[in-house]
Amino acid sequence: MTVVEHDGRIVVVDVGLRFPTPEMVGIDLVLPDFSYLRERASDIEAIVVTHGHEDHLGALPWVLRELGSRDAPPIYGGALTIAMARSKLDEHKLREVELHDVADGETLELGPFSLELVHMTHSIPDSSAVALGTELGTVLITGDYKFDQTPVDGPPADVSRLAELGREGVLLLCGDSTNVDRSGFSPSESVVGPHLEEVFSRCEGRIVVTSFASNIHRVQQVVDAAHALGRKVALVGRSMRKNVGIGRTLGHIEVPDGLLVGPREINDFPDERVVIISTGSQGEPLSALRRMAHRDHPQVELRSGDTVVFSATPIPGNERAVNETIDRLYHIGCDVITPADAPVHASGHGYAEEVKLMLNLVKPRYVMPFHGDFKRLRLHAQLAEAVGVPPEDIFQGENGLPLDIDERGARFGAAEQSGMIFVDGVEIGDMADVALRDRRMLSADGIFIVVVTIAEQDGSSVAEPEVIFRGVPFIDEADELLDEIRTTADRSLRRAAKEEIREVDLLGQVLHDDLAKLVYDRLKRRPMVLPVVVEV
Amino acid sequence: MTVVEHDGRIVVVDVGLRFPTPEMVGIDLVLPDFSYLRERASDIEAIVVTHGHEDHLGALPWVLRELGSRDAPPIYGGALTIAMARSKLDEHKLREVELHDVADGETLELGPFSLELVHMTHSIPDSSAVALGTELGTVLITGDYKFDQTPVDGPPADVSRLAELGREGVLLLCGDSTNVDRSGFSPSESVVGPHLEEVFSRCEGRIVVTSFASNIHRVQQVVDAAHALGRKVALVGRSMRKNVGIGRTLGHIEVPDGLLVGPREINDFPDERVVIISTGSQGEPLSALRRMAHRDHPQVELRSGDTVVFSATPIPGNERAVNETIDRLYHIGCDVITPADAPVHASGHGYAEEVKLMLNLVKPRYVMPFHGDFKRLRLHAQLAEAVGVPPEDIFQGENGLPLDIDERGARFGAAEQSGMIFVDGVEIGDMADVALRDRRMLSADGIFIVVVTIAEQDGSSVAEPEVIFRGVPFIDEADELLDEIRTTADRSLRRAAKEEIREVDLLGQVLHDDLAKLVYDRLKRRPMVLPVVVEV
Repeated sequence: MTVVEHDGRIVVVDVGLRFPTPEMVGIDLVLPDFSYLRERASDIEAIVVTHGHEDHLGALPWVLRELGSRDAPPIYGGALTIAMARSKLDEHKLREVELHDVADGETLELGPFSLELVHMTHSIPDSSAVALGTELGTVLITGDYKFDQTPVDGPPADVSRLAELGREGVLLLCGDSTNVDRSGFSPSESVVGPHLEEVFSRCEGRIVVTSFASNIHRVQQVVDAAHALGRKVALVGRSMRKNVGIGRTLGHIEVPDGLLVGPREINDFPDERVVIISTGSQGEPLSALRRMAHRDHPQVELRSGDTVVFSATPIPGNERAVNETIDRLYHIGCDVITPADAPVHASGHGYAEEVKLMLNLVKPRYVMPFHGDFKRLRLHAQLAEAVGVPPEDIFQGENGLPLDIDERGARFGAAEQSGMIFVDGVEIGDMADVALRDRRMLSADGIFIVVVTIAEQDGSSVAEPEVIFRGVPFIDEADELLDEIRTTADRSLRRAAKEEIREVDLLGQVLHDDLAKLVYDRLKRRPMVLPVVVEV
Repeated sequence: MTVVEHDGRIVVVDVGLRFPTPEMVGIDLVLPDFSYLRERASDIEAIVVTHGHEDHLGALPWVLRELGSRDAPPIYGGALTIAMARSKLDEHKLREVELHDVADGETLELGPFSLELVHMTHSIPDSSAVALGTELGTVLITGDYKFDQTPVDGPPADVSRLAELGREGVLLLCGDSTNVDRSGFSPSESVVGPHLEEVFSRCEGRIVVTSFASNIHRVQQVVDAAHALGRKVALVGRSMRKNVGIGRTLGHIEVPDGLLVGPREINDFPDERVVIISTGSQGEPLSALRRMAHRDHPQVELRSGDTVVFSATPIPGNERAVNETIDRLYHIGCDVITPADAPVHASGHGYAEEVKLMLNLVKPRYVMPFHGDFKRLRLHAQLAEAVGVPPEDIFQGENGLPLDIDERGARFGAAEQSGMIFVDGVEIGDMADVALRDRRMLSADGIFIVVVTIAEQDGSSVAEPEVIFRGVPFIDEADELLDEIRTTADRSLRRAAKEEIREVDLLGQVLHDDLAKLVYDRLKRRPMVLPVVVEV
């Protein structure tokens, strides 16, 4: 999420989300901290979305709900992007939001900004760079892009318009850094199709292809290869069916009549006449492919002789889940083809030479690398230097650090509140605190709960302490330890009574300290120890 | 861990462990399930260990404790392997175990077996293949190996002896499959040294090299490169200091006098005169390098201008931790060199051509691929077919599936108990059960504890229910929900009283059902709900 501000007015570019790492126990989604926008809600002219991927669009419902959907700013983007935004907002019952398709070349006035979307190529149709004109010059945010000279559908990236913007004066270029560490030019999406067909032609059994559901051009190429080889196509997985549906409506994908068959019809055709296109390329726990690999899919039962083609690479962090899925498939007896075996995937992000081409086309006054870890931001900065941008005009930023630009120059300002907020079920909030720490502790060593019941009058124990534990393993000597805990609790209570400690919180503290020490001595682990004092 | 059995007697080859995946919450180590050995303890002639890595040696203390250390079988292995086993057993206070160095070429009689260790090359000195002679022929277990023609220290793998064994008749070859998916021959360990020196020569600040502490030849090469360029060497990390100590004692590593400096002395030398060799190449949470990357190491404070060299690749599953460490280093301003940037690492496992060479040298009657996921076992089988082993003589096994061989042939028998057991702190046991499930539940959604206090006589509530929660986030409306929980608990108690439910367990069940429903209705999450009934 990027906030561009001028004359007190704001345009927000992209509203993405992240998926949690395993350390974020029990967290479903990770959103950008948008406190800054909450305070400035009335100053927002528009939200512009570069393309329909979750990491650029996914936080939209939460941002709008936070800003109050009635006063929500209008949303702008390419046709597919807006269609995906609409579907997402419908799911969240946010139906009063203004959504606008912006055509290439169209210029809109948004307060002190002019807005133009410049057509780019990426692994989803209708991807754009965002050009925000101001009186100081244009701020150009590339979104995710590659310079694909032979895209599967639609024109290549509009290099001519980028060059024109460059001649007119680009103040700041914020460019994608995802693949800056790869040298040369990325291969065109079009090269994947012939390789898929070649791989398919060597398969004798059924073929399962897994890819991102939003990669509609990839799905098109799988469909084409299947059609060329006389195989029917079945779409498996909810998001695959949904995205292909949206793609067909918008004309981004063409499927010959009679080619598609339902998941239930797969077994009506001979093995060598079927291609299944499935979700699950990232090894996601409940995805169709993962369920097939675990022999747990209601419609598709894989077997020896089937071939599974991974037409995608694992996003960093997903390697283990993907490898586990692949190995399950080998165990079943399937053959597996990954991008390491054949060129069945092409990245949607440009390589180093494309990043340099962008810099040379746009000739920005200032450069701020976007979308990448610190390593990639630094490599992007080095590429900018290599094409002649003075080092002092390149800004390697951090989330929350504003870049202030005026007639005199550019410089980082003071950090604003930023970071991550967590979505846990239906609620969102700042989990970087007590609840998350508690969960880590609970998940590491479990919990002991010790309930003592004391008389209100004199603090004496009126019932035997109750001890309950959860998530604490292997207590062969459990009975003995539970006895010790009860004895220790009684002793602590008597000591507290002698010292005239009667306040329930203080009693709890005394019990906690004594019991935690005992538990650690016996188990050499530190489960959470939770004393509960009941007064009767 | 492999069990070889003949005439009712057993030789165990290797006793390794695994490290837990993130799903194994709170688990420290994963051991092989050795129930089978427990029942057969008196039949075990010996435990033979191929080399000193944790995945081949690490479970030794647990296996011995399980078998009873007094009746424990003797342990055999190369000199370094035995030294590492001794150090490990000392830490576990298992000092009565018989440990024997076996020299290359030495033959021992172990009941119905003859035992010989064949010198191999790997990423740790004193690695061996294990040849167990029986009247049916030799069982050869390769351990981890590569055919390094120019190892840093000691002779190359004893191909001559392997060939001789092949001529005499190898019944079964169990071979390493780790790198069967890489074509060609693996590069020699010796090629790493010159590349390290080349990389070092371009560094102007301090250099930190991280590698496996047990890769003593790698440490030697770092030491040599540092010495050649006039830099002092500091060893950082407990296992690095320990392994270098053992390696020096056994003559596997030579360090020029005055080259080593203590971690506290690092700042006494100019930046361009220092190389730090550190643990943490896998991004391990408490390792020295990870702490440096988080600016949390007591002796080494990294800064812009320092270079960190990863002389290791991530073990599958560790990619995310390694990448996070690398990005932290970039954030600090360090340069980072990985095997993707320069040939500063060589694998210890042979590639496809080496696996084929092993098969051709040994000419086994039967082949059972070892050490690899299902994919690699299958690729190994394909290599065996490629060199002429009949497909019916190749056995792709699974853990616990015994291969039975006699004069008539070879075939898989019925599966024995096998799998994983978990180590949690000091205890071991079968965690695949309640405690682990509880921990997952606790870590996903937290816990509510509701304590009700009832009179023994009539079951009436005598104190307000206490409600405590942990790991449950975002309860803005917490007070309201807590009130509702108390009200619901009271109502459940009254209903139970009316229905004459007085037994504490049944009361708990009623409370649980009512409260869990309420909590789910309000939070749309399923934290653990734990009612506690106290009778006074």
